[in-house]
Amino acid sequence: MDYKVIAFDVMGSDNGLIPAVDAAIKLLGEQKDLKIIFVGDEVSLKKELSSRKYNQNQVEILNTTEVIEMTDGIMDIRRKKDSSMVKALELVKDGKADAITTGGATAPFVAGCHFILKKIDGIERPGFMPVIPTLVKGKITLLLDVGANLECDPEDLVNFAIMATAYSKAVNGIENPEVALLNIGEEKSKGLELHQKAYKLLEENKSLNFVGNIESRYLANGKVDIIVTDGYTGNIALKAAEGMGKSLLTEIKFALTKNLFRKLAALRLRKAFKEVSAKFDYKNHAGAIILGAKSIAFKSHGSSDKIAFYATLKMTYNAIKNDVVNKVKKALEK
Amino acid sequence: MDYKVIAFDVMGSDNGLIPAVDAAIKLLGEQKDLKIIFVGDEVSLKKELSSRKYNQNQVEILNTTEVIEMTDGIMDIRRKKDSSMVKALELVKDGKADAITTGGATAPFVAGCHFILKKIDGIERPGFMPVIPTLVKGKITLLLDVGANLECDPEDLVNFAIMATAYSKAVNGIENPEVALLNIGEEKSKGLELHQKAYKLLEENKSLNFVGNIESRYLANGKVDIIVTDGYTGNIALKAAEGMGKSLLTEIKFALTKNLFRKLAALRLRKAFKEVSAKFDYKNHAGAIILGAKSIAFKSHGSSDKIAFYATLKMTYNAIKNDVVNKVKKALEK
Repeated sequence: MDYKVIAFDVMGSDNGLIPAVDAAIKLLGEQKDLKIIFVGDEVSLKKELSSRKYNQNQVEILNTTEVIEMTDGIMDIRRKKDSSMVKALELVKDGKADAITTGGATAPFVAGCHFILKKIDGIERPGFMPVIPTLVKGKITLLLDVGANLECDPEDLVNFAIMATAYSKAVNGIENPEVALLNIGEEKSKGLELHQKAYKLLEENKSLNFVGNIESRYLANGKVDIIVTDGYTGNIALKAAEGMGKSLLTEIKFALTKNLFRKLAALRLRKAFKEVSAKFDYKNHAGAIILGAKSIAFKSHGSSDKIAFYATLKMTYNAIKNDVVNKVKKALEK
Repeated sequence: MDYKVIAFDVMGSDNGLIPAVDAAIKLLGEQKDLKIIFVGDEVSLKKELSSRKYNQNQVEILNTTEVIEMTDGIMDIRRKKDSSMVKALELVKDGKADAITTGGATAPFVAGCHFILKKIDGIERPGFMPVIPTLVKGKITLLLDVGANLECDPEDLVNFAIMATAYSKAVNGIENPEVALLNIGEEKSKGLELHQKAYKLLEENKSLNFVGNIESRYLANGKVDIIVTDGYTGNIALKAAEGMGKSLLTEIKFALTKNLFRKLAALRLRKAFKEVSAKFDYKNHAGAIILGAKSIAFKSHGSSDKIAFYATLKMTYNAIKNDVVNKVKKALEK
């Protein structure tokens, strides 16, 4: 069988390998043409896998002795040669896997994609692209870059737009994805030189469906399919939005459980609150791709549980299935 | 009587002058040493004032014929010489008022403060400083700059910290305000050159209680009293947080009113939801000061209602009472 193969770095995330294994087994049961190479400590992996049911042909283990820790920096990718992250990246580089998924540290992973997977021709700076759940039912927004490159030039932003457009078409099935530029106002003249120049280039590029500037207040409003920005700004905007969402939900929970009367009334609204959190829950959109690397590379939240890892593995599988990297390459050649 | 005098530009905000007049009359009733010079269309103002009770000694009107519109730019401050905003600024410059409050357009107002009020010696870039309500009861966080200067150098950020510290001590009564630098991570080495240099300068400045970097996800967590950043980043972070808060509340409202059963249950939790919105409601913190101008200059949200205008006028009054500008000047001389 012609398997789609994911090299899955199961070490280095916050919650250990159990949720990672749980998620992988679930997806393997659903996708019969998927093979997962678990990369990490073989003893622990075998112990975890032994208690689970799965098709043995769909599973491999690659033993590694080192771990890239959450506190590790960029250079540890060079230093820890037998780490699960490095070995998983090498599997992809050597053509033994089609994609990598990891829940490990972001900075070393981005560096590893640079050093080991290398970049697509013409791409100077790959973008780190998470998915933003939005108020509009079923609609997600892709945001990039959120931190792979703190500084970008206007051309990088155009490349982000081209790559994300190809991704959105291939994976999300959006016919003509709307692209916006993150800025402090809607007018063309707003922002720094970077934004004014990028606006002009985006507008001129006929392969893009550029709709203008978007303010960070509309990040989760589902106004567009893709928002491009430099990594510093994207990181600030994303974390500000996530943080406020979390603060607000914490505050609501506090207010609703303040006394027994409120607790009882809130209980009757459980379903309503579940609907809201399901919409905004990052777990169902936990994966972010390094777009511009020569192969498919997905990062799951460091604190991923089974649901989050499952979502990221599924995104990785869909990216392989839809041949994302080749479609991105073709879009860049135009 | 030695009045504290506010020049109140009542034109140019979204909701007309009725909420502005309502708010002013309320505060005038509470603060007997306050005088407000209403600057705007005399006919409309007289009509509005005629139906209200107030001490005539506390009120003046300055008639103007032009209005700075929300869509107006920086140069309109020079062009519209008889606009309410320009005339109100001139009252302050000429010593006929101690401070200005406006609900008009931000960019022309910031420009007007530059051109007409001028800057405190040693300040190259005044900062636009709103108040962030936080999760911690009774605690607010000052954030600057949020858009007066898109680009800043490290020295500007230090000046923001010094000025905001003086403000926080004088107006908010915080003894030793904690200052943090907005950044993409907590480590000293994070961010762009701007942040690394600013970190060093902030750390070295012994007049400041600098506590390090803060991520945008903690904007509303009440971790610190003051957060400094460049105007571009501050604008992006503030709007991202505000936008997500609004999106989430919209979504919750939608979920809770979906059917009659939920509506009835939600009704019983009305008080709980009111507590939450009161905490996060910008209306009670609608004013932002242009810190570094030679006089006190407050901007209220463009969509201010009576509550918002009242909050901003009260902040303006407190700033006069606490002699903020002189305290800021002294802090900068050290």
